[in-house]
Amino acid sequence: MGKLQLKGLGLMILGAALSSPPNLRAQEAHLLNLMPMPSSVEAGSGSLKIDGTFTVALNGHMDARLTGATQRFAERLAKQTGLLLATKPVAGLKATLMVRTDHDSKPVQELGEDESYVLEVKPEGALITAPNDLGAMHGLQTFLQLMTVSADGFAAPAVIIKDIPRFPWRGLMIDTGRHFIPLEVLRRNIDGMEAVKMNVFHWHLSDNQGFRVESKKYPKLHEMGSDSLYYTQDQIRDLIGYARDRGIRVVPEFDMPGHSTAWFLGHPELASAPGPYQIERKWGIFDPAMDPTNEKVYKFLDEFIGEMSKLFPDHFFHVGGDEVNGKQWDANPKIQEFIRAHDLKGNAGLQLYFNEKVQTLVSKHGKVMVGWDEVLDPTLPKDIVIQSWRGPASLAEAAKQGYRGILSNGYYLDLGWSAARHYAVDPMTDAAANLSPDEKRLILGGESCMWSEYVNEENIDSRIWPRNAAIAERLWSPQDVRDPVSMYARLHVISHELEWLGLTHENYYSRMLHRIAGPATSEEFEALKNLADVVEPVKDYKREETAPVQPTSETPLNRIVDAISLESRKAREFEELVDKFVSANCHDEAMDTRLRSQLTVWRDNDAKLQPLIQRSYLAKQVGSTSRDLSAVATAGLAALDALEHPGNADEAWRAQQLVVLQQAENQKDQLLLMPVGAIQKLVEAVAAGGSCSAAKQ
Amino acid sequence: MGKLQLKGLGLMILGAALSSPPNLRAQEAHLLNLMPMPSSVEAGSGSLKIDGTFTVALNGHMDARLTGATQRFAERLAKQTGLLLATKPVAGLKATLMVRTDHDSKPVQELGEDESYVLEVKPEGALITAPNDLGAMHGLQTFLQLMTVSADGFAAPAVIIKDIPRFPWRGLMIDTGRHFIPLEVLRRNIDGMEAVKMNVFHWHLSDNQGFRVESKKYPKLHEMGSDSLYYTQDQIRDLIGYARDRGIRVVPEFDMPGHSTAWFLGHPELASAPGPYQIERKWGIFDPAMDPTNEKVYKFLDEFIGEMSKLFPDHFFHVGGDEVNGKQWDANPKIQEFIRAHDLKGNAGLQLYFNEKVQTLVSKHGKVMVGWDEVLDPTLPKDIVIQSWRGPASLAEAAKQGYRGILSNGYYLDLGWSAARHYAVDPMTDAAANLSPDEKRLILGGESCMWSEYVNEENIDSRIWPRNAAIAERLWSPQDVRDPVSMYARLHVISHELEWLGLTHENYYSRMLHRIAGPATSEEFEALKNLADVVEPVKDYKREETAPVQPTSETPLNRIVDAISLESRKAREFEELVDKFVSANCHDEAMDTRLRSQLTVWRDNDAKLQPLIQRSYLAKQVGSTSRDLSAVATAGLAALDALEHPGNADEAWRAQQLVVLQQAENQKDQLLLMPVGAIQKLVEAVAAGGSCSAAKQ
Repeated sequence: MGKLQLKGLGLMILGAALSSPPNLRAQEAHLLNLMPMPSSVEAGSGSLKIDGTFTVALNGHMDARLTGATQRFAERLAKQTGLLLATKPVAGLKATLMVRTDHDSKPVQELGEDESYVLEVKPEGALITAPNDLGAMHGLQTFLQLMTVSADGFAAPAVIIKDIPRFPWRGLMIDTGRHFIPLEVLRRNIDGMEAVKMNVFHWHLSDNQGFRVESKKYPKLHEMGSDSLYYTQDQIRDLIGYARDRGIRVVPEFDMPGHSTAWFLGHPELASAPGPYQIERKWGIFDPAMDPTNEKVYKFLDEFIGEMSKLFPDHFFHVGGDEVNGKQWDANPKIQEFIRAHDLKGNAGLQLYFNEKVQTLVSKHGKVMVGWDEVLDPTLPKDIVIQSWRGPASLAEAAKQGYRGILSNGYYLDLGWSAARHYAVDPMTDAAANLSPDEKRLILGGESCMWSEYVNEENIDSRIWPRNAAIAERLWSPQDVRDPVSMYARLHVISHELEWLGLTHENYYSRMLHRIAGPATSEEFEALKNLADVVEPVKDYKREETAPVQPTSETPLNRIVDAISLESRKAREFEELVDKFVSANCHDEAMDTRLRSQLTVWRDNDAKLQPLIQRSYLAKQVGSTSRDLSAVATAGLAALDALEHPGNADEAWRAQQLVVLQQAENQKDQLLLMPVGAIQKLVEAVAAGGSCSAAKQ
Repeated sequence: MGKLQLKGLGLMILGAALSSPPNLRAQEAHLLNLMPMPSSVEAGSGSLKIDGTFTVALNGHMDARLTGATQRFAERLAKQTGLLLATKPVAGLKATLMVRTDHDSKPVQELGEDESYVLEVKPEGALITAPNDLGAMHGLQTFLQLMTVSADGFAAPAVIIKDIPRFPWRGLMIDTGRHFIPLEVLRRNIDGMEAVKMNVFHWHLSDNQGFRVESKKYPKLHEMGSDSLYYTQDQIRDLIGYARDRGIRVVPEFDMPGHSTAWFLGHPELASAPGPYQIERKWGIFDPAMDPTNEKVYKFLDEFIGEMSKLFPDHFFHVGGDEVNGKQWDANPKIQEFIRAHDLKGNAGLQLYFNEKVQTLVSKHGKVMVGWDEVLDPTLPKDIVIQSWRGPASLAEAAKQGYRGILSNGYYLDLGWSAARHYAVDPMTDAAANLSPDEKRLILGGESCMWSEYVNEENIDSRIWPRNAAIAERLWSPQDVRDPVSMYARLHVISHELEWLGLTHENYYSRMLHRIAGPATSEEFEALKNLADVVEPVKDYKREETAPVQPTSETPLNRIVDAISLESRKAREFEELVDKFVSANCHDEAMDTRLRSQLTVWRDNDAKLQPLIQRSYLAKQVGSTSRDLSAVATAGLAALDALEHPGNADEAWRAQQLVVLQQAENQKDQLLLMPVGAIQKLVEAVAAGGSCSAAKQ
């Protein structure tokens, strides 16, 4: 076996993927489709055949969780291959895949437990060895990703993988406050996390729009604050068990003192203004906040945190602490008097006072407090963990002060960023790069965040996946694994594999488009899909800013903006093709033909879509964008035509095309037309003075 | 409101769907998308808006089943529209949709109960009236189909529908013996049946390959005869309740005396040869049969039928009775001696003797016996029901003898027929058309049959749906509703609606193709899909006959033949286009362009698919068919080219093209290339003497 350094391997395979003959490519693509990429991969020769005789055996230390995981592994292998396999682990030493662990993992999974494993695949058999079941379970997931269809059956290539995570805290936060997310949706997302080796499910459980946990101590919390949409304690215990079986910790978050309107329906006495309160239906930052000056609030929280600390076994307990606008505090003379009397530094000082008291309670109940950026203050004990939504600078600052931190800035899945943009965010860059080794160790990892203003059970998977897998890789793989081209090639494969877990991020799309289309001919529906395939929702916080009517939790999420992918694969691939074409000085007939064929489809699409736009109020919302697509495709075709008649592409022509393109670049009905930039590149290249105009003359 | 006769309406709408301006079409498409088409539809003017204020109320006779059905209706309405709706039925008389029933239905649903309803939709509100909840539930399903997206929101068009089924027995049989089908799959298929107003789930529960019911009397039946894949009695009671809630009877079938190998693992003493027995893994007709001469067999069956009669409350009990090859009886001298001693007419007489005894037992336990064709004999009492797999002649013969019958011949879903071919089969045609009115009344309806040699939980939905909806219409709607073009237009819409029930007949496809493709570029995958979209599996019993290796229950169902649709929509639409083009003497530029564009994609497809064919053993199976597609598309393009150069399309050219087409028409790797016929039409039309060659000259 030749030892290949990971980075070299990635690059070599990548080159192969783009230009090598099919055979070589097929062989190496095997290795390419691991996500997260392991920390070390040595390619071997040959491969292990996977057929109906496949078996898996456990030996070494026996562990119930691992037995279950091994059976699930075999069931998934059977499902993904369509083979009839024995799914019960066998005993003894004769099996296709042996799994060997050395000792127990902790009963309650701990931060920083050893998650390493070694996976060795040879033509005669495969072996996973790991100190404990956490690593072994990761190894099973790697094996599933290694396995692929080959020219003579399913197989896993011979390989030695030695793998260990870069960060110990690799999380996904799901906000179940703003939209209630059913348990089955959480379960399938936890399956997805397991597949990409994430290990923390951060469960955002209360917010202005809903209090989602059954409290036996204070039942008015969920009874009055949830629209009857909450998780019972039995359900929560089940979910925690489900996550634990997959090597995933569950960290609950109860946001306080702000983001807490839903608490106050049942308990207005906790608030800083008298009430009564309604469940909030809008999105944003709101005034209601707990009253830090009221000793009864701490008595209540003591009981409540006590109850929840028993329900959630994890060592960490998230108290939110973000985005208190202070208006209720300003308006309450008693509170202002308290600030003066205690010599607190305004509202910030008051919140710090609150945080110190809450931290004491969390600590009293045996937990370590986690909070968003705002809780950071040197007066708090050093064991708390800061979750940074503000950015790496704030994370580095915390580390310098001796606090542990996790990065979420840059990982907000709801903002509609591309996978590549998330992927480029690294907890150790910027200010963090200059930290001392000891300070660096305080940066525990990161968490992607799925805030739920614009997601519900129907489209949430598509807002998390597949992009979350790129973030998972950032947090697991070595820092120098960062080539976005390789990432996209692998992400695409992983995305389809994730569908076997029941995640709906691929198949929700056709259903939502059919709802928008209503009864339609094949041609009409295809026209809708052609357009939808290359538009994305407006990014960052523009969804709210550009809304024609203020959206609420009662706004249906059935519009085209809810149905389309947050990242258009088709537009990205089109841009790649344009880039290659332009690099070749527009001198490549095959690429010319492909571009022309795509642009022709787009140019003619609006006419085909018109019947639907007339018939369906949901399709009507793409009307302007559909016209734009036609217009920019016409510009693109004109650019290709101009290659034959270079004299035509003069400055006036160029200016005229750019007007069309700039007009199309603006969002309409909250939709962004993604191919505009690539077509602009084409126009610029072709126009007088551009790289292609010169080449042609 | 203008009264429109159904047939006229269907035709008018159909014409509109093909050629009218979008507005008219959109309005009338509303009415078009009912399946089964009601017996009477009067169009009104305007429509009822469906938005977030939608409510539904029950009044008149109260019924728990109807309350549940109404809530499920509202939940489905919310799901299909994406609107946030109140899903609990409200009390009182102010609701968007009122549901009014007059009296109870039977606690155990009976054959021939009134299933009629009237649904009136006006812009101010809608009303369903029905004698009992069965009709009301059908009305709710019709309302769901009426509802559609419109230019200013979701709406149901104003209409008065008076509806009553043509036949009282409208069933779907699922064979859970050959492949075990999990309960959740059965449940979603029962939801599908409800949507298309089928009312009998015929549960084929035992066969040579498996005995699928827990028997507490004879536990060795399921313990030894099922590979641990069986339904517990609790699960069965649940499923019966689930079906009852949807107005669906459950008729169990225990096939005897043949098709019974799985019984004999635990009870070899029932068989006509000593055993021991193994669960059968192959498909076909096998020798094992119960011993009709053994009195202990009847004691056993008395106990067993008694137990199952309690478990299954329906009044009908199916005993199979088909396909006894008699070999075990021939080989057993004791049995032959018995035949002689009792003066029976050979093995047929022996089976009749068995049937009479079994009928007595079934009757003793309060049930009416149902059996396949073979059980028909004038010596049996007239209350038994004959299920005809042999054909309408055999059904008519039974009716003439005074026996009730249900037709299944022509409705075998596993044979891969087109929806149109099933749709053309009518229980009242052929010999049945000449029966007297009294005899005609004995024909109760029909049942589609899903035999499960080549289906499992992954692809079974796609083998049942959407074609089963066409059969459901045949059995519900008036006999003169039989236009296949209208049927296909509606079937396509219904098919997408059925996906909201969790049926996977649309979305399984992409997943299975991705398994076949393995890691692939967009272009490669699209090439696989382009091909897969226009191939169908070999028909009738050719799947077995053409198999390279004898298939068994252990053969993976992961091949392309398992993944593709049984009916290619793309090929059908292509053929429609060719027909229109040829009808226009090939003189239509727009159609010429569309044909040319499709044929070009097909011609170039094989080259794009080659990398996958090289890499994946599952994709390799389409290799020959892929080459054929390229070749026939080349012939089609040559035909279009010849329109410009008519001299080229001489007899020699024609003969040359036909060789290519005929070669491509033969199945390869069990795949049929569907566009061949349409391309042949094009070649014939263009060639010297064809309709287009004349027109051009």
